Order: sequence, then C-alpha cells, then structure tokens
Amino acid sequence: MSAPRPTIYDVARAAGVSKSLVSLVLRGSDRVSEASRAAVESAIRDLGYRPSRAATDLAAGRTRLVAVLIDDFANPWFVELVRGLGQVLAPAGYRVTVVDSANAATAEDPVEGVLSMHADGIVVARDVPRALVDSAASPIVIAGTRTDAPVGVDVVANDDGAGARLAALHVIGLGHRRIGHLAAGGGAARARAASFIATAVEAGSEVVATDYTGPATEAAGFDAAGSLLRDHAGISAIFAANDVMAIGALGAARDLGIPVPAGLSIVGYDNTPLARTHLIHLTTVDDSGFGVGREAGRLLIARMAGREPVGVARTLQPSLVVRGTTGPAR
Amino acid sequence: MSAPRPTIYDVARAAGVSKSLVSLVLRGSDRVSEASRAAVESAIRDLGYRPSRAATDLAAGRTRLVAVLIDDFANPWFVELVRGLGQVLAPAGYRVTVVDSANAATAEDPVEGVLSMHADGIVVARDVPRALVDSAASPIVIAGTRTDAPVGVDVVANDDGAGARLAALHVIGLGHRRIGHLAAGGGAARARAASFIATAVEAGSEVVATDYTGPATEAAGFDAAGSLLRDHAGISAIFAANDVMAIGALGAARDLGIPVPAGLSIVGYDNTPLARTHLIHLTTVDDSGFGVGREAGRLLIARMAGREPVGVARTLQPSLVVRGTTGPAR
Repeated sequence: MSAPRPTIYDVARAAGVSKSLVSLVLRGSDRVSEASRAAVESAIRDLGYRPSRAATDLAAGRTRLVAVLIDDFANPWFVELVRGLGQVLAPAGYRVTVVDSANAATAEDPVEGVLSMHADGIVVARDVPRALVDSAASPIVIAGTRTDAPVGVDVVANDDGAGARLAALHVIGLGHRRIGHLAAGGGAARARAASFIATAVEAGSEVVATDYTGPATEAAGFDAAGSLLRDHAGISAIFAANDVMAIGALGAARDLGIPVPAGLSIVGYDNTPLARTHLIHLTTVDDSGFGVGREAGRLLIARMAGREPVGVARTLQPSLVVRGTTGPAR
Repeated sequence: MSAPRPTIYDVARAAGVSKSLVSLVLRGSDRVSEASRAAVESAIRDLGYRPSRAATDLAAGRTRLVAVLIDDFANPWFVELVRGLGQVLAPAGYRVTVVDSANAATAEDPVEGVLSMHADGIVVARDVPRALVDSAASPIVIAGTRTDAPVGVDVVANDDGAGARLAALHVIGLGHRRIGHLAAGGGAARARAASFIATAVEAGSEVVATDYTGPATEAAGFDAAGSLLRDHAGISAIFAANDVMAIGALGAARDLGIPVPAGLSIVGYDNTPLARTHLIHLTTVDDSGFGVGREAGRLLIARMAGREPVGVARTLQPSLVVRGTTGPAR
C-alpha cells in the first residue's frame, strides 16, 4: 500500500491518450477507435487502475455487479465468455458473477434469483426467459445465438452458420462423404446443424443427423454417437453440436474400438478449455467466447451508463482450430 | 399458474411430519433427524414449494443471495459443491451465485466484488482471503481444506488425509512400488501429499514428488508428469493433487507413448464431471463435493438465521472410485 494509487491521469499518460478519452472508454462509448480502446484497457490492467467508486453508488442502489445467466456449469464453454466480460467490466469497476439455471433446485426460479441480486447489468447466455426480460429493471445483453431473443435487446454472438460451414468444409476437404451430426436443443445448436447439413449436402456429401433436442451434454453425445455408429454403416466423421457432446462421441468411439482419427474424425464447437487439453486435443470451432464477452461487456457498460439499446446483433467471426481428432478419410 | 401454490402444510403432509418440523428444517436447525430432514427436503422439491418471501426482506436489506468464492472456473470440481449448496439453499429461498477469483482482472479485488453483492451468506471455497473475513458483514462458511482458515469460522471439508490414504493403498495393492506424486499449492493439495507419501513409505513403496506449488491446472499436471516420467525411470503409477492435473498427466503419458493403465496407472482427486466422462474414465477419490455443499448450506442457513458459528470443522469421509486409469503393476 506504499505506492500511490494510480489515477486516470496515469492511465491517460501510459496509453498516450487524453484523460477524456479514458473517460469515454470507461463509460463504454462507441466513439473510440479500436486501437485507442485497446491501449487504454491495456494501461488500466498494467497499472492496476481502479475507478474510484463514488459513495453515491450505494445510495443510488448500485451494486457494481453484473450477473451472467448460464445453462450448466458442467459445460465449460462459459469460461472464456466470463474472462472476456471480466477484462472489460473489471477495469470499469464491475464484478462478474455467474448463476447456473441447470443446478437450481426445481423449487427456485432462476429469474427470481437473478432479480434478487440487484445486479446493475445482466448477461443472458442461455435461451432467454421471457419473464426476465419483462421484469428486469437493469439492462440486459444477450450473449450467443439464443431462442426467444426479444426484439430491441442487444445481442452479441458468433456466426454459428459460418462456424458450422468451416467445420463442414474441413471434413469434406479430408474426403469424408458420409458424415454424422450430433444435434441438440437451443438456438445455437439449431443454427449449427442447419448450416452444416446445407454445406455438406451442397458439396455432395451425405449427413445423418440425430433428432435429439435436449441439452448438449457429454452423456447425450455418448448415447447419440453410439447409436449413430452402430446403426449407420460407413460414417467416417462426426460433427457435434458442441465440445462436450464431441467428448461424449470420443468416449463412444473408444468403447466401440474405433481409433480417432484413423477410423473416425470428430469435430466439436466452442474451443472450450477441455478441447485444448493435451489429452483430448479436439478439432473444434473457436466461437470467440472471449471476444463475445468483451463485446457484451462494452455494450452493457454503455447501457448501464444510460445509453439506449441498439437492438441489433453484433456478430463475431468464428475460426476453425484443427487439432488431433480429425484426419483424412480412408 | 392454475394449480394452487403449495403451502408449508402441503410439505408437512407430504413428508409425514409436523408444520413446525418443516419450519425447523427451513431455518437450518440441527435439532432435526437426518431422516426427517431428508423427507422434508424431498417433499419441498417434489411439490415445488417456495417459502413466501416476506416483503420485509428487501426493507431489511436481505438479498436472499449466497455467494460462493472459488479459484478457477476451468476446474470443474466446484460443480458438485454448487449442486449440494443449491439443494439445501434453494428450498430455503436462497439463490447461489459463483465468483471466480482467477478470472478477475488484476485491477479488481475479489473480496471487494463479493462484498459489493451484499450476499446474505458467503461460502469460501479457496484459500481464505483475510480481508474478506475481516470485512464481511454476512456469515461465512469455509468449504474444503483451506490455507489460513481463521479460528471461529465454520469449516466443512472432506478428510483429505483419508482420501489420499485410499489412493495410496489402491496403487500399492496393485503392486506399484515406485510412485510419482504431482503436488500443487493450497491447503487441500498439501494435506493430500503428506498423507499419500506417509502411507506409501510406510508400506515400503517409494514416492517421487514434484516440488511445484502453483495452481493445480491441467497444464501444470502435463508439465510435471512429463518431467517425472522422463527424469525418473521405473515410475509405474502417478497420484495427482486433483483430477485436472491427472488429466494433464494422461496427456503427457499419451504424448510419451505410454499406455494407461497398461504402462502407467493414474489416480486423481475430486471425482469431477470430467473424471466421470466415458472418454477419461479416471480412477479418483470422491471428496463428496455434493455432501460438502449440503452441509455447508445447512450451516450457513443456521448462521443466517442468527445462530453463532460452531467454529469447528465438519469432516466428510471420501471414497475411492476405481475406473479405467489404474491397473496392476507389470
């Protein structure tokens, strides 16, 4: 505590910009170039700068809290999203906390839970509960491609259609002509399925898709891949709705004695921490959870500062990450 | 919304107990038998009963929120803890939210973050920040074996010494006589290391332990296991400080071309959702995260109702879960 606490002037100096530009970044203004914003955010991190929290925060009922509503803690896709949110929101003085609707006991309504914490802002990263949109007094930003996203609410998402197309072109380029798809419920999974099938069929490949519409869990991926591989001869590649289902498929392949990728290629979606482990080393689509989190954080800061919602979707481009679970068709 | 909302009388009837006993359970009383408590909790879930939230909650500044402070979202050991907490706290009208200190930007102090959300209760499931204990106006329960757990604060944890002993006896029973241990920082990891080494040495086995004291991540497990296997001939089994490090070790073994379990046995700790996947199928110690969560939730309910902290540790017994990553020494 001996070093003096850094001020907004220190941040401006370190970033090589004016104090008022730092203020604009802290308020989430969109009148700031990407380069200046990055320089300011970097200086804030390097200096450990924290905006002074006016004593009026408490009096005004501000909690400096942003609540993120997700589906299921057992699916680590949300880790990058929360990291991206934190990188933008923490320097602006906000704290990110995560509420998981799947783990709630049936007696408790996740919407009421989120409302009860009086967060200054809410990020919805699951299919959108209508009651939340109707009742929330705080600004909402939707992260990801979601069912029932209401008109007029800001949405930040990766382009699931483009990502699934990358996955399809990859396996087709490897020579796979009979491909399985592990489907799941929810807006993102549906968008991925539609684009993957359209791309593959257009290229003259055949896709056998499962008709499962429940949550995209490891167990669901294991079951669906097992059925697919047993009931449909000649499938040499599988595209799963997400990484967790792909890990289920890897387990099914192992149990059936099918080597990956020599006998079966598997592609996931999300580029989760699991996909990046040395053990799993999964070919997947990086849907830029970190970038979606940063963008959602910036939009939310602007909304919390009183700006009206844009009511449009900001779409980030996904990329393909080729690792060890895909290879040429035999 | 046409069915009448269930009342406390409905719960009492369904559980076969009196209304006042239901009240005792909702207040977290310890004057309730385990059987009655289970019956009431089950009836609450089945009926979807929610205690009416008095309008005075808001006036009294109650948020009905319980904050859980964890280390790192990328390590899914916390999933069962949160499930256990939710099972007890949701029927009592509390919502669980998770704050991750690893993902916080450096500019933000996790302690300040937790304080700013004005939670009615706090569960600390990482090494305990002194500033939090000093500043928090709300009751705190510590979950897990933690460094710097202050005297006078309730602690619920599994018996890490007993769990590591189970792991040691398992690999020794399989005939392994030269065993690696992947150490890590933190109170739980240290307790596991000490007990594992003592048990193995007592049984006449040799343990080569790494001296790493950082966070127990997959990357750390991969690096440590790689060094261990390259530098020390004859190691036929590895006990990792937790599941995530064990998954790193599985990756290292694969990269070195060592088959598991034929050439190397690997044991983790936590019984995370990852350990239970068909693909990883990891032999591990179940440290009863769900049970720790339930007990911590009950203690917290009692504290939030005004009862003084017990100031003692409640210790749950861990169990060994044998899966596919351990086998006989050659």
